[in-house]
Amino acid sequence: MNLAAIYHRPESEMAFLYDPQTMHIRLRTAKGDVKAVQLLHGDPYSLRSLAGIEPPFYTKPTPMKKILADDLYDYWQIAVTEPKKRLAYAFDITGVDGTRVIYTDRGYIQPNDQEALDEMNTYFRMPFFQEIDMFHAPEWVKKTVWYQIFPERFANGDKTNDPAGTKPWNSSDHPGRQDFYGGDLQGVLDHLDHLQELGVNGIYFNPLFKAPSNHKYDTEDYYQIDPHFGNADLFKKVVKEAHKRGIKVMLDAVFNHIGDKSPQWQDVLKNGQDSKYAGWFHINQFPAAYTPTKNFEFTPDATYDTFDYTPHMPKLNTANPEVQDYLLGIAKYWIEEFDIDAWRLDVANEIDHHFWKRFHQETTALKPDFYILGEIWHTSQAWLNGDEFSGVMNYSYTGAILDHFVNHRLGADQMIEQLSNQLMKYRDQTNQMMFNVLDSHDTARIMTQAHDNRELVKQTFAFTFLQPGTPSIYYGTEYGMDGENDPDCRKPMNWEPDTTAQQMFASFKDLVALRKDYAHLIAGGEISFKILPNGLIEVRRTGAGHELTGLFNTTGAPVDAEIKGQLLLSQGISNSQLAQDGFAITLN
Amino acid sequence: MNLAAIYHRPESEMAFLYDPQTMHIRLRTAKGDVKAVQLLHGDPYSLRSLAGIEPPFYTKPTPMKKILADDLYDYWQIAVTEPKKRLAYAFDITGVDGTRVIYTDRGYIQPNDQEALDEMNTYFRMPFFQEIDMFHAPEWVKKTVWYQIFPERFANGDKTNDPAGTKPWNSSDHPGRQDFYGGDLQGVLDHLDHLQELGVNGIYFNPLFKAPSNHKYDTEDYYQIDPHFGNADLFKKVVKEAHKRGIKVMLDAVFNHIGDKSPQWQDVLKNGQDSKYAGWFHINQFPAAYTPTKNFEFTPDATYDTFDYTPHMPKLNTANPEVQDYLLGIAKYWIEEFDIDAWRLDVANEIDHHFWKRFHQETTALKPDFYILGEIWHTSQAWLNGDEFSGVMNYSYTGAILDHFVNHRLGADQMIEQLSNQLMKYRDQTNQMMFNVLDSHDTARIMTQAHDNRELVKQTFAFTFLQPGTPSIYYGTEYGMDGENDPDCRKPMNWEPDTTAQQMFASFKDLVALRKDYAHLIAGGEISFKILPNGLIEVRRTGAGHELTGLFNTTGAPVDAEIKGQLLLSQGISNSQLAQDGFAITLN
Repeated sequence: MNLAAIYHRPESEMAFLYDPQTMHIRLRTAKGDVKAVQLLHGDPYSLRSLAGIEPPFYTKPTPMKKILADDLYDYWQIAVTEPKKRLAYAFDITGVDGTRVIYTDRGYIQPNDQEALDEMNTYFRMPFFQEIDMFHAPEWVKKTVWYQIFPERFANGDKTNDPAGTKPWNSSDHPGRQDFYGGDLQGVLDHLDHLQELGVNGIYFNPLFKAPSNHKYDTEDYYQIDPHFGNADLFKKVVKEAHKRGIKVMLDAVFNHIGDKSPQWQDVLKNGQDSKYAGWFHINQFPAAYTPTKNFEFTPDATYDTFDYTPHMPKLNTANPEVQDYLLGIAKYWIEEFDIDAWRLDVANEIDHHFWKRFHQETTALKPDFYILGEIWHTSQAWLNGDEFSGVMNYSYTGAILDHFVNHRLGADQMIEQLSNQLMKYRDQTNQMMFNVLDSHDTARIMTQAHDNRELVKQTFAFTFLQPGTPSIYYGTEYGMDGENDPDCRKPMNWEPDTTAQQMFASFKDLVALRKDYAHLIAGGEISFKILPNGLIEVRRTGAGHELTGLFNTTGAPVDAEIKGQLLLSQGISNSQLAQDGFAITLN
Repeated sequence: MNLAAIYHRPESEMAFLYDPQTMHIRLRTAKGDVKAVQLLHGDPYSLRSLAGIEPPFYTKPTPMKKILADDLYDYWQIAVTEPKKRLAYAFDITGVDGTRVIYTDRGYIQPNDQEALDEMNTYFRMPFFQEIDMFHAPEWVKKTVWYQIFPERFANGDKTNDPAGTKPWNSSDHPGRQDFYGGDLQGVLDHLDHLQELGVNGIYFNPLFKAPSNHKYDTEDYYQIDPHFGNADLFKKVVKEAHKRGIKVMLDAVFNHIGDKSPQWQDVLKNGQDSKYAGWFHINQFPAAYTPTKNFEFTPDATYDTFDYTPHMPKLNTANPEVQDYLLGIAKYWIEEFDIDAWRLDVANEIDHHFWKRFHQETTALKPDFYILGEIWHTSQAWLNGDEFSGVMNYSYTGAILDHFVNHRLGADQMIEQLSNQLMKYRDQTNQMMFNVLDSHDTARIMTQAHDNRELVKQTFAFTFLQPGTPSIYYGTEYGMDGENDPDCRKPMNWEPDTTAQQMFASFKDLVALRKDYAHLIAGGEISFKILPNGLIEVRRTGAGHELTGLFNTTGAPVDAEIKGQLLLSQGISNSQLAQDGFAITLN
């Protein structure tokens, strides 16, 4: 047995409270190396205090289930309860080579090592089931399908607030970096019916606050809706009308850095070390200065810390209590005054944990079910222990989906391995909170990535909508809009859909409805992946006696498909065959 | 290469800020499986923003050093800085079989996978060096040698406060569970000179607060010094006099449970569900009741959660904000009013993390260098990330030392493997904060464990004093007191030491002085272990150009020993031989 490959970590994604009474426990073993795992578990104190009264808990092992596998590992999981809410546990592991060991907090012991088995300090521990430490997943997020709006490009509802030089609204245009098209909040308000018809029930707004650029990531004033978008009253109305329709609202918080046009930074430029904002930034040498280059967003030598290498986005010092209070004041203002439901946190990984813990405390104190979404592109375990973010932008996960379905860089087996690997990095309830985006304002649009193959786009979305996590549609995808990397992916919304676009809309509408109808199963159920002998990818979601099955053809040719159960949604089925790019979702 | 055995976890004990500019990064590989590891590391944004300006960082790898090994793994470590304070990194690993892979946040890639190497999201990340998130190790603790006082048994300085039935002070007595001997704070005050002569500079007091028992773990009033020990004024004087002598003071906080004689629990018994304290506990069914048994400390069926199975220690509900405020009020009271320097937290693992984070915040707000010591017997990573405890009672570590030196259950190689394994579970600065106790009020005294072999006891202490962590001497060990498991290990202090006891004291005095003189090296230096060909155990502590070497003979016979450098402290050296139970500590 490959003992060196076996891994468990207490109080992590490998051992966590799933609900106040239930622990989920995982074990990782080398792929194909282990035949069976049993969990020895019980109240640690029972070993001495109930000795002679009850048989010791290690005499009653419980089998664990192999749930997922990646390229190197098998993953085992079990749900356990414990009346005393105190848990000691160890893994009784039998290798395919027939050897057997007990894996404990103190390393490996032999199954007959009575002295070690009787000692409570041998075991891994969850010392007490603490509901207050449990990762809390807001229920509504599990039922939410998001719609991402890049406000400058969604709809121009009020021409009186257009910036100078606004270009005519043309959804076929290729926008330049500095272009303006006049999109605004009145446009959003005017088209809430569109969202309602599509069925989405969450809006993720790219930044709305006053900023010079069209993307507004260079915030000038966090307390002001950009005048080209509207004003506070109008935004309040948008939230109210959205809520009336059962649609939640998420705003984009850019707290890592501030725009260099902000009064705080301007004060630093003017007063240098004497500025009352000097401590708000990371200034390595006064005066704050840099050498401009031909690239507006690049300098090699700023004397202050910035986002990336851009001199126009000085990094905020979030370890400074004044900055903390300032940013938390903003975070709370938009909740208290406007009733928003979620914050999406830009460049969240480069801000300190101390700040995010305060952020979590103070936002959830206002709304216990507040959703906190971090933008992090790499492994995010450090932020997802329950006291910082609810979830992160799940690029690694959806990236693997795109790499199989759309980019053909990964075989189906490799995709499944990567998805399984990602799922095992986080607690089950964290996986349910992950924000699954296939494209966005930062990437080429999926239609372009898919070379305008609409069937493929719909298939990829169908697969994604069956995954744990809360999915998102980037504005215009429901009509099949295309676009290369930004700024091309930020074209003005197509408000004159042709028949093809309308058909695409109808398909998305069905998919959104399915995701919402079966939210409990899709968000919370167990997941398993399989590649069938005919090459179809099968995804099963099971829970509460139900089972949802998705079949996806990515083989390159039609294959015979046996569709069992009630067919809920499909594409490309004819004569008992599933076409390439086809899919079938059934209920059993 | 055993790829499945390779492990790294960002933002954990495997990747942490050691000081505001320096990251320590570790990698675990299967034992003897890997020939070399190089770290690829640099600013993630440089890969795109400095492309064409500077060669990519992955073209300049830095070799990692194999620092420790246990039974299954080799551990590699490196210290790196990064001017932009943003770090991307990956491991370039060459196996003893000649294969080579790059281990990244997205799994293994080939060394020639240019596309992956150029992509910043390939790498593990420390997104920004955040000093505010860094584990903070109070400097004074590194220089502290503790002395543990069980107050009822240290010295009776005031006979007027003796409990009824106080037994005569006799250090040869075998105390019963319910005996009282009259030890008190006046006794401590009277003997501060003894501590000062011994050289210890920290007192760890077992509980001092009002409680019915002799051990005082069944707190009745957290705001009152037990009247048999003295009063608030006297305690204030003890702290002041200790501080005058450069001695820090640590108190024992029993916050997991309260005594059943406390007014809060008495109120629950009286008023049941209507008690204003009903929510202070975990009462599963009213009325709070239990079936007494012959064993005072055991009931099978309490209707409320307790410590262990004892009905007299109802567990406090620390998720209740009222309880939090109550306990934090106590924690702060003894700091603010009495100027204590540290809290030792009883049964710390069974209290929620949420509470301990508040505890950390509020105590360090009063004293930034406050030391927080948790009682946890199992792996404690979840509490040691910088925002809860400074360290824990290091039983696993000292247990391995005892199991080799004293109990002969482990060979020297096995002990070294276990110590290495423990050291690799925590950040370097956490290891420096660990509380290294060889015996205490909860175990048999080390003299008894060592069958009264004084040389062995001194050798074991010498080995322990060279380890990372802050060591502790249980009262009376400096005179060679013995005692079986509690209550026998709680004999009245021997205040009439004979010559042998005085010799023991002199040895401890020398050892304490050495530990303090070389605190910087012992607390902060690197550590390596070796078993020499002649069977001696060699411990090396290196740092800042100096090296401290300890040689220990546990072979059972005298061996030839070459003592190099300046001999600082030794035992059993004659004719170039080191006797069994002998040791030599030298400086190079």
